[in-house]
Order: sequence, then structure tokens, then C-alpha cells
Amino acid sequence: MHMTRTIDWDGEAVAIIDQTLLPHEERVVCLREVGELTEAIRTMRVRGAPALGVAGALGIALAARRAQERGEDVRQAVERAAIALASTRPTAVNLRWGIGQASRAAGQGPEAIVEAAVSVLEADVKTNRRIAERGADWLESLRHPGRLRVLTHCNTGALACVEIGTALGVIQLAHRRGLVKEVIATETRPSLQGSRLTAWELRRLEIPYHLIADSAAASLIARHAVDVVVVGADRIAANHDVANKVGTYPVALASQAAGVPFVVVAPESTLDDAVPDGEHIPIEQRAEDEVLGFAGVRVAPLGSRAINPAFDITPSDLITAIITEDRVIEPAAKTVASP
Amino acid sequence: MHMTRTIDWDGEAVAIIDQTLLPHEERVVCLREVGELTEAIRTMRVRGAPALGVAGALGIALAARRAQERGEDVRQAVERAAIALASTRPTAVNLRWGIGQASRAAGQGPEAIVEAAVSVLEADVKTNRRIAERGADWLESLRHPGRLRVLTHCNTGALACVEIGTALGVIQLAHRRGLVKEVIATETRPSLQGSRLTAWELRRLEIPYHLIADSAAASLIARHAVDVVVVGADRIAANHDVANKVGTYPVALASQAAGVPFVVVAPESTLDDAVPDGEHIPIEQRAEDEVLGFAGVRVAPLGSRAINPAFDITPSDLITAIITEDRVIEPAAKTVASP
Repeated sequence: MHMTRTIDWDGEAVAIIDQTLLPHEERVVCLREVGELTEAIRTMRVRGAPALGVAGALGIALAARRAQERGEDVRQAVERAAIALASTRPTAVNLRWGIGQASRAAGQGPEAIVEAAVSVLEADVKTNRRIAERGADWLESLRHPGRLRVLTHCNTGALACVEIGTALGVIQLAHRRGLVKEVIATETRPSLQGSRLTAWELRRLEIPYHLIADSAAASLIARHAVDVVVVGADRIAANHDVANKVGTYPVALASQAAGVPFVVVAPESTLDDAVPDGEHIPIEQRAEDEVLGFAGVRVAPLGSRAINPAFDITPSDLITAIITEDRVIEPAAKTVASP
Repeated sequence: MHMTRTIDWDGEAVAIIDQTLLPHEERVVCLREVGELTEAIRTMRVRGAPALGVAGALGIALAARRAQERGEDVRQAVERAAIALASTRPTAVNLRWGIGQASRAAGQGPEAIVEAAVSVLEADVKTNRRIAERGADWLESLRHPGRLRVLTHCNTGALACVEIGTALGVIQLAHRRGLVKEVIATETRPSLQGSRLTAWELRRLEIPYHLIADSAAASLIARHAVDVVVVGADRIAANHDVANKVGTYPVALASQAAGVPFVVVAPESTLDDAVPDGEHIPIEQRAEDEVLGFAGVRVAPLGSRAINPAFDITPSDLITAIITEDRVIEPAAKTVASP
């Protein structure tokens, strides 16, 4: 089965492309129970901040449908599902947002819940289209003398959303407008979303790219091999500190040192005004095994331990622009402008 | 065969521990021909700046011995070997230095050449011992209120030298003195010297450690989970810019941002006054395949390309101290402390 969407609703169940099998196998998995979906989120079969927002909403729809079929209490099923879904990934605020969007209809019965969830799904595509337009316009406004060499981290393409993508959606549209020379994509350890997912998407889009070890990003930026950095976000605090895939912060430091614009692309649902700054964003700690090996190949000696934070915090003063579907925020300029 | 030295001379040939097989297999390989040694250097069966210095010297000894046995011109054989050995790893200055130390005896016949090479080997152990003492003293002088959480990158232990190590030699001695609480070791993509080699050494030394993805170093430093960073060097320019394993520079940026001391440990043979600054240090570009896969597992889609610089440049103003067997240089403070 070929699927044009990363995550979709077939009327009865959630269909996802299993991202742990990419790029070597493209398999669609159908999830009928909330427990199957929470497991898929936890193991990153479905991942990416906007896709998690949609997964949260569709998870509530699943709970409502199954409760309806089994003659159980829909409200209670929705509440239980909301707690289970929210606990899977603590940093991603979109997940909570999506759960909330669908849960709000809980009093109106299962059909209304499913409708609310599906509208989150459909809205994501439209939001991404608007983000891409605004982002490509912003890149065009750089008035760079040559075509841009764009560095990105992790995966922020269609696979991180429903279609199109956030940062990679911007890059894709900018490429179609002739603004992009090539993409430099970090492999993104430990789960290798860059070399597995971003590379897979860039090949399909026929955008020239090179992969690099995450460690090489800073030196390529320092050696003027990168014109602009464009990344996504998993949560943006009220002061515009950004939580994103671990490794984003050192890239931002290197960008500032080299005077390279550092751009964050995310839907408005990623902004969390309830959190004052990056220090207050909870950082998910993932399994040690992700660091100790990869794809079943054990690297470190037995008995080794690992620390595996999934995200890091980039302080707002390192961020040139945050681009959403509605606006461009320029946190660093704001900081510089203050007396 | 068990070997206490990473690289040794058995009177006729060079014996090395094959570092590509660690940590799962400890195999000693005997190299009788210069061509075998250049291949071993290129594929990183033997690696690490000081060990490469010794390998360069012993490679010249090999050339002299084989020429002598075959009745060939020793001087010519030494010249050919010097060129072949020097071309294997362009960044490592110790390699050139070791080749030079042994080649200087070329006019005095094969015995003198072997003797000069073996004295490079023996001197490395003594040098490392002095470096460890000076480095541990320096860490002690930090007067840190608790025991130190030390972050290191790549492998700089006995496996990077003949015995003991540079940065890891310092950490080892500091641990014996009760100064070290734990080591945080980066896995060091793409060749995973951290999770394969440093972890293997730390386990043997019974020093507590955690492995991290390279990308996580900056955020752990920012979150005050690291008290000091201690790394090695592959070449140090006249202005004290440091070439070291790719990924060193972003760690230095994060250290400066967090006010964490950033310390480089290397023998005097790593200082290259012929090179004015980091921009003039040649950076070795290694095979793309190292980045496109992980520990033998293909990751990226077929047709993907990679950029794979093996080293990066840390500007001297990010470096708190450079510790050698003879002195402590404090580039950020622009002072040289006497012994």
C-alpha cells in the first residue's frame, strides 16, 4: 500500500508509515487500539512535532470509536486515552495540543470527537502550506548573492507532519523557487532521522544533499560552507527559547559565531506560553540502548551506561527568526534592539 | 596474544592491537611491510596522534630492515616509506614528526634507524607519564568543590598512544588521586572511537562513565552536568588554534558559553610552529561510507553522498589550557605558566 500521508484516518483506524523501517522499507501500519498508537509513538514509528499533534488528536478519536463499538463510556475512554497519549513524549507540546483539540468535543459524542480529530489532521496540511510560503519568502528576503546552502538537523519534512513539512517544507518550496543550491543534513544520532528520513525525502524531492555526522555541522558553518540553518521545534517557550532535537543548540552556537542566520520553523501550536523559558521545558530522556548501538548492532562494551536526552534548549538570543503560519518572530533582533 | 602496548616493535616487525575490532575482539596484528602499515593507518587499525607518531617512526624502521634483508638501497627505501607514510593522514602532525625522527638516522644505516625509531616508542611512554602528572596537577589546581565530572571526546587513552594516553591519561591519574567522579564520553561519530575504545579503556580502568551522542555534549555542558572538558589534539598551530577530532569545536563553544574550563592535552610533538593558525591546518576528508552507515549497517538511502571531515579547528580563544609534558599554555588568558 502506498501512502501519500505520514499519518491518516481511514474512518475506523489510524494508518501510519512505520518510520523505524525507512529508508529501506516503506510499510503502512494500521493501528486500531490506543495502546498500539501509544507504543508506536514511544518507539518513534510515528514522530515529528506536528505529526505527534495529529497522532494525539487521532488517538482520542480511536478511543471514542472503540468505546462506542464496545458500548463503553466514551468520556471515560477519552480521559484515559488522553493521559496515556500525553505520557509518551514529555517534551513535544504539539502532542498535548492535539489531544486537547479532540478532547474538547468529548461531551458531544463520538462522531463530534472524530470530526474534531480529523479537522486537526486536515488543518496540519493547510498550516504547513502557509508555513512553507512564509518561510520561502523569508529566505528570499535574505538577498543572498548565490543560491543557498541550507543546513538542517533531524527530520522536519512530510514524515514529521501529515504532508509537506515544517523546516523541510520551507526548504522544498525555496528549492522550487530556485533559491536552494543544496541541503546539508545531519545524520541525527542516536535515531538517525537525518540519514534515514530526511535523506529519503530529499531524494524523492530531487533536492541535492550531503549527509554529515552531527559533529561536523559546527565546522562546516565555521568554514563558510553553510549560508543558513533551518530547523524545526518541539516546544517554544514564552521567551522564545526553543526545545528541538538534541544537537540543535551547538549548531545555533556555531551559527552565531560565524554570523550565519539560524531559523526555526514551526506551527503556532508549538508555542507554549504556559512555559516561561527553556529551563522550564521538560526534556525527555530516552532509552540508553539508542546510544549504545544502532539497528540491533551493539557498539559499546557490555555494562556501559548512557545518558540520552532527546532534546536540547536553544536560547532565544541565538535565533534569528521563528517562522510560523501566522508570523515571523525575530528573537535575536529583539534582544539586540533592547537598550 | 595479550599486549600491554597499543603499538610495539618486536625486533623485526610492528605489532599493533587492531582497533577496528574493539571492543568485541582484542586481536594483535603483526605488520612486516611498510604497505601493511600504511593500510593499517589509513583504515584506523592504528590511530591516535601520539600512536601515529610512533607508527611513522616504526614504519621507517620497517623500511630499513626489509631493504637490508633484500640487499636494497636503505636510503631510497626510507625516502619512499616516508612519502607513503606521510600521505596516509594529512592532519596528524605527530605522524610527520615520527617519520622525521627515524629518517634523520638514514645516513647511519639500518641499525641506527631502528634504534632511533625504538627510542621514539620508548619516549612516548615517558612523555605520557609526565603529561599525566602535569594534567592531574592542573585539574587539582581547579579547587573544585566536588569531585569532577569530566567530559571527553574521541579516544585519547592508551589506545591512542603506546601506553597511558594523553587526555585520558590525565583523567586516569586524576581519578587515582580521587579527583574524578565520572567521565562523560562522546560516542564520536562516525568511527565511534568513544563508545568502542574509550568505553573499553574506562571499563578496564574501573572509572565510572556514561556514553552520550556527540550532539548531547553541548546541552549537558549548558545544564551544568560537566565540570571540565579534557580532549586531545592532532595538531596545534603557532597561535594555539587546535585541530582535533571533528566535534571538538562545538564542545569548546558550549564550554565557553557555560564558563566550563576547556583543556587540551598533547605532547610537544603536536605543536607545529610552521603553521601560523588553524585555517592553515589541512583537514583530512575521509570516506563517505563512514557517515552513510553505522558500525557496518547501511543507513542512508542508496545514492546518498556525505561530507566527512575527520577534524575541526578550535580557535585558541576558546581554550583554557594546553597541557604538554613541558608546560601549561593558557591561550584564552594569553599567558604561558612556567612549570
